[in-house]
Parts: sequence; C-alpha cells; structure tokens
Amino acid sequence: MKTPNIQLLMTGNELMTGDIVDSNSSMIAEQLLSLGLSVQRKVTIADDLNLLQKEIDHMCNQADILIINGGLGPTTDDMTSQALALCCNTILEENKTAKEHVESWVKKRGKILDDPQLKQAKLPKNSTVIPNLVGSAVGIKIQHKNCDIYCTPGVPSELKSMLVHTIIPELKLKHCLSMHYKVRRFQVFGIGESALQSQLFENIKDWPKSISLGFRAASPFLELKLTAKENKDHPHLDTLVVQIKNLLGAHILEEITSFPKTMAEHTIDLLIQKNKTITFAESCTGGLISSLLTNINGASKVFEAGFVTYSNEIKTKIVNVNESTLIEHGAVSEAVVIEMAKGALEKSTADYALAVSGIAGPSGGTKEKPVGLVWMAWGNLQRIHTTHFIIKGKREYVQISAANRALDLIRRLLLEETEPPFYLQNIMNTAETPFNNFYTRENM
Amino acid sequence: MKTPNIQLLMTGNELMTGDIVDSNSSMIAEQLLSLGLSVQRKVTIADDLNLLQKEIDHMCNQADILIINGGLGPTTDDMTSQALALCCNTILEENKTAKEHVESWVKKRGKILDDPQLKQAKLPKNSTVIPNLVGSAVGIKIQHKNCDIYCTPGVPSELKSMLVHTIIPELKLKHCLSMHYKVRRFQVFGIGESALQSQLFENIKDWPKSISLGFRAASPFLELKLTAKENKDHPHLDTLVVQIKNLLGAHILEEITSFPKTMAEHTIDLLIQKNKTITFAESCTGGLISSLLTNINGASKVFEAGFVTYSNEIKTKIVNVNESTLIEHGAVSEAVVIEMAKGALEKSTADYALAVSGIAGPSGGTKEKPVGLVWMAWGNLQRIHTTHFIIKGKREYVQISAANRALDLIRRLLLEETEPPFYLQNIMNTAETPFNNFYTRENM
Repeated sequence: MKTPNIQLLMTGNELMTGDIVDSNSSMIAEQLLSLGLSVQRKVTIADDLNLLQKEIDHMCNQADILIINGGLGPTTDDMTSQALALCCNTILEENKTAKEHVESWVKKRGKILDDPQLKQAKLPKNSTVIPNLVGSAVGIKIQHKNCDIYCTPGVPSELKSMLVHTIIPELKLKHCLSMHYKVRRFQVFGIGESALQSQLFENIKDWPKSISLGFRAASPFLELKLTAKENKDHPHLDTLVVQIKNLLGAHILEEITSFPKTMAEHTIDLLIQKNKTITFAESCTGGLISSLLTNINGASKVFEAGFVTYSNEIKTKIVNVNESTLIEHGAVSEAVVIEMAKGALEKSTADYALAVSGIAGPSGGTKEKPVGLVWMAWGNLQRIHTTHFIIKGKREYVQISAANRALDLIRRLLLEETEPPFYLQNIMNTAETPFNNFYTRENM
Repeated sequence: MKTPNIQLLMTGNELMTGDIVDSNSSMIAEQLLSLGLSVQRKVTIADDLNLLQKEIDHMCNQADILIINGGLGPTTDDMTSQALALCCNTILEENKTAKEHVESWVKKRGKILDDPQLKQAKLPKNSTVIPNLVGSAVGIKIQHKNCDIYCTPGVPSELKSMLVHTIIPELKLKHCLSMHYKVRRFQVFGIGESALQSQLFENIKDWPKSISLGFRAASPFLELKLTAKENKDHPHLDTLVVQIKNLLGAHILEEITSFPKTMAEHTIDLLIQKNKTITFAESCTGGLISSLLTNINGASKVFEAGFVTYSNEIKTKIVNVNESTLIEHGAVSEAVVIEMAKGALEKSTADYALAVSGIAGPSGGTKEKPVGLVWMAWGNLQRIHTTHFIIKGKREYVQISAANRALDLIRRLLLEETEPPFYLQNIMNTAETPFNNFYTRENM
C-alpha cells in the first residue's frame, strides 16, 4: 500500500503574530510517527475565510489526508466549518450529534446555550462528527477531491484526545498500518548524538538493516529511537535492544513509555530506595543542583540542607574549607571540592554529599583553568570520589550540564556502577589524571 | 504605500517529525511586528529539493517578500541555495564575500576548510550576501518574480542576528515603515493580564481610541504593548505612556527595546549600584532564588552565600532558628522566616537577606496552611519586613512565582518603593494583616 501524502493546515491569528509557538503540529507529527507516517507539508495561515477556502482547496489537490487544526470554536474568528462548506460546495446545517454534544457540555458547566455555542453544531452537509471528549467543539471529517479532511480543535488537550481516540485508530485501520511498525525509545544521558552513533555502529557489527536508528535532543538528555517497519523485524529489534542496553549500561536512564523522569527524579528514587539522604555544596552551579532536586515532590525525604558557597570566605566560614587550601590550590581544585564535600557532610546530617566548584564563565577563565572547567567531589565520610571535566558552552549551559552530571554521578554511585560515564572517559585517560583515580580515592 | 504580502518558508526534516518545535517563525513574526508588519502565510516542508523548488516558485506568485529559514548549512540535506538557483533558472557560483567569510570562520575555530564548508560559499548567480555575524553560513538575498527572497539560517541566534542587523532595517527603509507605526513595549511584573487591563481602563478615562493595547505572557512577566498606527497618533501614545508609568510605578521593570532583563538581573544591577550584597535562606524554593541570581554573570559581586534549609533541624542548625519558634509557630510562619533572615545575615557577611518558607505542594497543605502559602522576610539587621501570600498552581509554578516575588521585593526595597505591589494588596488590606504592617516591622 502506498504511503499516504499527509498535509497539515494550521489556522489562527495567534500563530502568525508570534504570540504563541505552535506545539500542536509537533504533537500531530509525533502521533503520526507512531504509525510510521510523516507529514509532507504544513501551511499556517491567519483566520481569513477567503484564504482558508483557497488553501484547503489547493491542499486537497495533492494530499490524501489533510488535518486542519484550529477554527472550530464558538467565536466569529472560528470559520473552519464555513470554509469547508464553501470549498465542498455545500451548505452548513445543524448536525444532530454535534448539537446534543454542545447542549450537554453547556448544561454540565451551567452555561447558557447561546448562538455562539450553537454555531459549533453547524457543520457542512455530509460531514461526520469526531467526538470531543474534552471540550465543546466537535471535530469534523469530510471528503473533498478524494482527500480525507480531519478538522481538529486548537486546544492541545482536545486535539490530543481526538488524535488518540479517533484519528490515529482510523488511519491505522484504513491504511493497514497496525501490523507493521514497532518503535522503542530510550532516555540517554552523558553521551552526545554523534559519539553515541559511533559507539553503536562500532560495537554492534551486525546491525540489522531493517531497524532504523533515530535521535532526538531533549537537553540535557538524548532520546534514542529504534524503529522496525515490518512484522518480521520485531525479533531483530528486541535482540538489538538487549545489545544496546549491555553496551550503554547506566547511560540509559529508562525506556520511554509516556513522560520520562528528570535526572533529579531518578536520583531521588534511588536515595529513597536505599533510605539515604544527600547534601550539596555548590559554587559555580549556585544552587541549581539543590533547586533541581527540590523541584520534585518528595525531595524532603532525601534532602535537608544545601550550601551555596559562592566566595572563598564563605567556603571557609560555612563548609570549613581551609584558607591554606584555597591559597595553595585555588577555589577550582580537587583539594577544595574534597574539603567542601567533607564540610557539607559535617554541617548537615546527610549520608552523601556532592561538592562542585568551577568556572561558569563567560569571564574568570585562565589558561590553566579555562571557562567551563568543573571539579566535583562526591561520596560519604568513608570514601570521597573526585573528577573534573571541561564543559564548552555558554554560562547557562555549563551550569545545567554540571548540575545534571552531579546528579548523574550520585545516581551512578547509588547504582554501584563502576564503569565511568562516557563524559569522563576522555579526561580519565589522560596522563595527568589516570583513569584509575576515578572511583578509588579514599577519604583523608 | 501598500502593506507587503509577507510569507515564510520553513525547511527542515526536524520540523516535520515533531522532533523540535519551530520557534524561529515566532521570532520572525515578532521582529516584523515591530515594523507593524505581519506574516500572511507560512509553509513548512522537509528537506527535498523538488518540493523546495516548487514551493518557492509557487510562493513567489503571491508574496512580495519571502523569508526562507533553514537549509543553508554545510551538509547535503541543506539545499536552499540549490533550490533557489533552479527556481531562478540560474547557476550556483562561488561568491567572493561568502568564501572569505567561510574561510575566516573556519580559520578562527581551527577547523578544516573542506568541501562541505566551501559548499556554503556557493550561491545562486546575482544573489547578495546577508552577513552572518554569528555562524558559518551566510544568508542570501535574491529577487524572483518581483518577490524579495531572504534566506536565513535555522540556528536561532544566527537568524536573530540577520533579522536585527540586515533584514528588518532593509524592510523598514524599502517600505517606508518607520513613519507610521510606533510600538512601545513594557516588561511588567506582579499583576495579571485581566487585572492589569481593568486597572488601565479604570484609571485612564480618556484612553485614546487610536492606541491599541496588547498583552503577551512571558512568564513570570507580562509584556504590555501599545501601538499607534498613524503618525498623528504618536503624541497620544507618548502621553499615554507617561500616564501608564505613573499608574504602574515599580510594576514596570523596563521599557523593552531588545532583550528584556530577568528579574535577577534587575536586582543585581541595583545591588551593584548601591554596593550591597545579599544572602538567601530558602525552604520551599529549595535553592531556586540563589540559582536565578547566580545564573547571571556578575552575581559574585553581590552574592556570596545561600542557605537551603529544607528541614526543621537544618533551619535550627544552619541559620539559628529557635527550636521553640518552630514548635510554637510551625516552619511556615512569620516568626520562622524572620529568624531565618536574621540567621542568614549573621552566618554570612551580607548586607541584606531574604528568607522564604512555604508549602510548594502538591502535598503538605492543611486547612490553616494551604498549598501555595508562602511567608517571606527580607531586610537588613536594622529592619526586617515580612509578608505572606497564597500562590495557586502546581509545585513548579509556586516555586517560580515565589522566587521571582522574592527578588522583586528586594528590588522594591532597593528602589525605596513604599507602595506595595499589586500581588500583596489584597492580603495587606485584610483585617488580620493590616496594610500598615507592610514595610514597617522593626527588627527585634
């Protein structure tokens, strides 16, 4: 069966003025992708009857499926129905199903069934209603020039509901798509897109040609997507997943089924599981690590105290860093982060501590200690681990990357993962900080 | 002069798969709006030479100005130049300006001048270079069917730079737009859209009909936009601005000309001006206030220490809150935030402190202390101010709102603003916490 030509028509003045960013078309594309379908072309126009009519007519010349989004509501600038009727050379008439829906929706909310509300029940003759389980405006399905037109509401939750409950199942059935596609997605941290791709292709020699590999940046994560297009490829996909899981180890945070967790959520889950608490002594991240953790409901189970020690004096005063250590090594050094971590453990009652000191930039870098250099120490009173790395990018990127790596290092410690993450391998293999130093330093 | 018909052509596979949300077209629309221009129609397609060529040709039939975004880079899926040449029935040739730019860009970054890089210097004959001050790919300007085509890069920072430095000034000049439209925009904090609208219409009785009022939510801020369409309305606009400034006072953070500052930047600016430092003792915001401040380069001039005191024990241990105060009043109380602020001042060397304790939710609320209740104390060793309010919304919203209000209260203190902000007026006018208590509590 030929892949259908799918086009989107997005309508609404607000899409043209830059007042809102269109996230609906991403949602539509993603839903279609679950069937292995993709959007060929998308047109966005303002609410103008004449433009709408022309555009619909023009798009139906090429498209097999046209999804229109927006313009179904009660106000006068909602004119998708009208445009459709003009286009299909038919009239608008009251649709019984649509009227019953509007009546019951209005009644439930104690609103008045006025003309604007009733307008939503007037559909082009010969069109079919797409039920709206969330809002007042029903969707519309109609044929024009052999193109299946689906009209959907602009409100994201209503659009989503119609896609999931009607449009996607219908397309699946009509275009016989259910039997073939299988997609598995994984949340990955600590390795970039091109490095990950090389790793996969270098280490998995017999990559099945029928399985396509995709990436999606969801900073600070990378989403890895594997797609099998045919039924017969499903076993290959499952075998490949086992190989990839072995290869990537703790770089994979989870297999994505609905909403992936944040790094902080993973770290909190493990701390709760092990009944442990954590504290942070932050310099260059300035409170961001604490903030990422406390953003999650339930953080109070594992976190009581955080120290933002932004100056040398405060490092000494608040987390007991020796003045002489600061003078001898500078604030961005292994010796200082070790003392910060120790101090944070002593000052709080936490089981684990992580300390971070670095140069977030854009100023403050030197030749020996460039912008982006970050030192970290983490562990408990028995054992402190240290590492350092350079993050290239703007201040905010350096802070966000460092904060997520900090949480990742704690997560890896709790997982008792002994393999260093990819983002430390290059540094660890240099002569100055031999690989073996990682995860072995005893507390002094 | 007739308003030009402006159309956008957005290209890129990533725009079709739902992998990224297109924010570039919002940026273009916004920039055009500053000239009073709007986009008529937008088409989005994948990287396909045949589709590209057809679409450009078709769009030039209607459009006076066509802005193409994407497809200028070094890789094989970047084919805007090629499509343009086909469309204009001309050849690609090495452009001297473009080549010099690519050479110097490559050299500066220590990269190799390879074929993919050089590809970016091959432009359609008779086209003009739009300088790229940020990245490697130059923009292209060419005419086709009386339509001015501007090709811009997909990287947002490069697009922005080309819009600001070349395209917008050129359109302004060519279409004589400077003379008619006048837009003034203001960054507002602490009052919602509908409340602000009521305030304006209630207090400004003689609102000139020729001046239109617009809002744009840029959470946690609200952008207020005033537009005069005709030359003769400019004086009315200026008079209106004076009235609005008087009415809104410190609710206006700045008049927006390019990139508005964050709340933290405003607070830091004032602290630097007054040569003062600040510290935070955070409970429910969990480090977010420190993080917002240290996100800004230069924070170290005004900030040395932050305390995240998430549990009762740590409030006592780290910022000297009395155990008896916690027992008597609970952690979310005026008495506790006062002691937290005092403790933070004593433990740091800061001139000012702000302390915050609240219930971020979704759990932890009671009838007396519901989710969203936040207590704040701020000031110096001479005088501590306190207030409380209830923020309705999800955990993250409560934290972000509270953090921004915290910085706003410091900003207002430094501005010596005595009028309470709108978000405190309702609370302050109740019997329990009389209005006068605000800004008058002496330190105990």
